[in-house]
Amino acid sequence: MKVAALAGGVGGARLAAGLEDSLQIGGGELSVVVNTADDFDLWGLRICPDLDTVMYTLAGLENPDTGWGLAGETFATLEMLASYGEDPWFLLGDRDLATHLLRAERLWGGAALTEVTADLARRLGLRSQLLPMSDEPVGTVIHTPEGPLEFQEYFVRRGQRDAVLAVEFRGIGEARPTAAVREAVSGAEAVVLCPSNPLVSLGPILALPGMRELLSEASAPKVAVSPIVGGRALKGPADRMLYSLGHEVSATGVARIYGGLVDGMVIDRADRDERPAIEDLGMEVLATDAVMHGPPDRARLAEEVLGFAATLGRAEGGRG
Amino acid sequence: MKVAALAGGVGGARLAAGLEDSLQIGGGELSVVVNTADDFDLWGLRICPDLDTVMYTLAGLENPDTGWGLAGETFATLEMLASYGEDPWFLLGDRDLATHLLRAERLWGGAALTEVTADLARRLGLRSQLLPMSDEPVGTVIHTPEGPLEFQEYFVRRGQRDAVLAVEFRGIGEARPTAAVREAVSGAEAVVLCPSNPLVSLGPILALPGMRELLSEASAPKVAVSPIVGGRALKGPADRMLYSLGHEVSATGVARIYGGLVDGMVIDRADRDERPAIEDLGMEVLATDAVMHGPPDRARLAEEVLGFAATLGRAEGGRG
Repeated sequence: MKVAALAGGVGGARLAAGLEDSLQIGGGELSVVVNTADDFDLWGLRICPDLDTVMYTLAGLENPDTGWGLAGETFATLEMLASYGEDPWFLLGDRDLATHLLRAERLWGGAALTEVTADLARRLGLRSQLLPMSDEPVGTVIHTPEGPLEFQEYFVRRGQRDAVLAVEFRGIGEARPTAAVREAVSGAEAVVLCPSNPLVSLGPILALPGMRELLSEASAPKVAVSPIVGGRALKGPADRMLYSLGHEVSATGVARIYGGLVDGMVIDRADRDERPAIEDLGMEVLATDAVMHGPPDRARLAEEVLGFAATLGRAEGGRG
Repeated sequence: MKVAALAGGVGGARLAAGLEDSLQIGGGELSVVVNTADDFDLWGLRICPDLDTVMYTLAGLENPDTGWGLAGETFATLEMLASYGEDPWFLLGDRDLATHLLRAERLWGGAALTEVTADLARRLGLRSQLLPMSDEPVGTVIHTPEGPLEFQEYFVRRGQRDAVLAVEFRGIGEARPTAAVREAVSGAEAVVLCPSNPLVSLGPILALPGMRELLSEASAPKVAVSPIVGGRALKGPADRMLYSLGHEVSATGVARIYGGLVDGMVIDRADRDERPAIEDLGMEVLATDAVMHGPPDRARLAEEVLGFAATLGRAEGGRG
């Protein structure tokens, strides 16, 4: 079975790891299409937070406590940068730096991010395809009462404390899904929208010119897993951001954002009362334990998601 | 008193630190002109081993055991680079990386090495001027029976085990002493050739087009400190290299290389029998304890070197 997953950071990485585990058993193939609109340059390097979170998680190297970064990370370079008077606002780890060095060397030499990412992933032994959503740079800008902030400025430096007035994806008009992304989505037998922030993680992927058409034309059933459980984000500022931007902070609110795009929503049992509202949007609903507490949970949820997608695929086939 | 010191790595750095200490007492100024022909690119960064050894030593941050690198250094980035399949042949430390990141970012942005070095030195609190010999890249190539080797390839990767057939400074014809170097040498009241490898550390500085003329025209007395004591190099491969290239492995052998360029040689007491041979080359000789065992030794030797230079200056004046 070929599966394409759209993912942002930690939540996406965890479900992707679960999908990989379930697919390995059946000899399936996973392609993870990852948000790159959070990418930014720091100290001459290109930092790709979501790509790296997914890569480290699929390589089994992630920090299990934070979900991002590498296990056993140290920060000696950052301390020395601070001795030089640099502001150490972004927690750049020593081990993590190896990734950024290898990436920057090749990117500045003219290689495409897709090619560089595939090479890094291969060298860390990844079994799945790790695909940046686009090779053209896109930059998420968060408009706040304090003015526009680059995403990492908002997210890390200012600790998500600002109200969000609007979200802008700078450069999105010139960016395109890569050929590898098009192929992965077109050839998939299931497309999974991971439990990532629908506005700033999956938002940029879906905002790429041609991406919604690509998904609509894909024959595979499309399933989204809600990152909102019991009215709260599992991780990150998605709940506050949804609220600020006038969305309902619920699985239904997320389903509305994905309306017309996905065939099924996976929600947590805690939100099972929302089933009718989501079904009214023309989606099937699977209510299950949608919170991943550890690796066994990931594989269990992934299997349920794939099983759910398979029923939708049969239903589609039946209607066709 | 204004002093210009020509320096390579560890030996040069140690005497430069001593010179700085002695000059601080009298309110003097030190400019250190440093070899850059060992510089090379690694993982997208520009590594400047001699500049960094001098900078770290003058900042009091050097590893006292090795003489190069930073005290308390760790190697987590390098370990991760090895996990990516990179060959960790060059001991790139985590703290050291901060220097290379800040340097590369500015160099690749178009800044000159002189400017970048001054900025890094200022940020680490250096009191002396740290001057790359040239802003144009020069690359030392060691010709061996195994073929030509880049300097760090010969020095680090192959552990100086190859016989040296010839030394080549690639690009030296297009390189020039910088304006800051010219000013430091012209305005100096003493020029000190530090106890660095005369062939591959001070060799490139002296081989820069116009450098020998610059030194000849400078009115200051010029004093060299022998890096060979008792027929052996204090550090590094200078002794084997001198031998391979047909030089006498002695203070006299070093004096011959500097013949016509310096007014005085500082040699170790162990080599005092060489005084007549060196005097025959037209140089004054100071025989003292030329081995620096620690910071107090550095300052003591530096003071003796400056005192010796002062007597040469007076002698020059008497003849004028």
